[in-house]
Amino acid sequence: MSQIHKFSGMKTNFQWEGVEGLPLTDEGLKSITKHILIGNNEGAPNYIMRYFRVEPGGHSKFEKHPQEHEVIVLHGTGTVQIAERITKVEPFDVVFIEGGELHQFKSGENEALGFICIIPKSN
Amino acid sequence: MSQIHKFSGMKTNFQWEGVEGLPLTDEGLKSITKHILIGNNEGAPNYIMRYFRVEPGGHSKFEKHPQEHEVIVLHGTGTVQIAERITKVEPFDVVFIEGGELHQFKSGENEALGFICIIPKSN
Repeated sequence: MSQIHKFSGMKTNFQWEGVEGLPLTDEGLKSITKHILIGNNEGAPNYIMRYFRVEPGGHSKFEKHPQEHEVIVLHGTGTVQIAERITKVEPFDVVFIEGGELHQFKSGENEALGFICIIPKSN
Repeated sequence: MSQIHKFSGMKTNFQWEGVEGLPLTDEGLKSITKHILIGNNEGAPNYIMRYFRVEPGGHSKFEKHPQEHEVIVLHGTGTVQIAERITKVEPFDVVFIEGGELHQFKSGENEALGFICIIPKSN
């Protein structure tokens, strides 16, 4: 069913009512928390909206997979690497990562990087 | 291919490099501009990321359709109506609108409402 998650965070600590942050512990990543904003709990049929918080000095895996990412940065600064190209990212920058491309997000040293990332549901 | 649109706007005038704002003129809506951030131009295969700016006093259509919306508010305040329920929305509130539900976004009177809305590509 349709659903609203009211934002309940502050500028430096994003939170939403009814959504838990899940610290990720996979090998190859560092200091990341995932919040599933629209997913199975909400009945999303096709694609999932997640928020990731990368603490200063943290990073996602450098990885590739068949599914695409659609990303918009919400706060902080950092970099995105796609294949060999590294680009600085800042709030509201939009990144499309095609399926099959190696990619990695890194936070800067001084503040957490936060971004929305949408993936297909089946993955 | 993977692609980045650097944000080039200000707090009150969101813009992205390489993305044009398209003023919408459909009947039933008022004072809305659409920016397709990740779509056919970027090679998005499954779902489309759009940004909508609703000027003060403006609104989207009150409509329903089979496809779902996944929304996150970026700036301004306003309301979302889903069926008969009207909820105030503010920055970073997240809204899932299930396919088939009547819905409408309205901006407040004093500032533009801006939000990201993702839909399936086929629609």
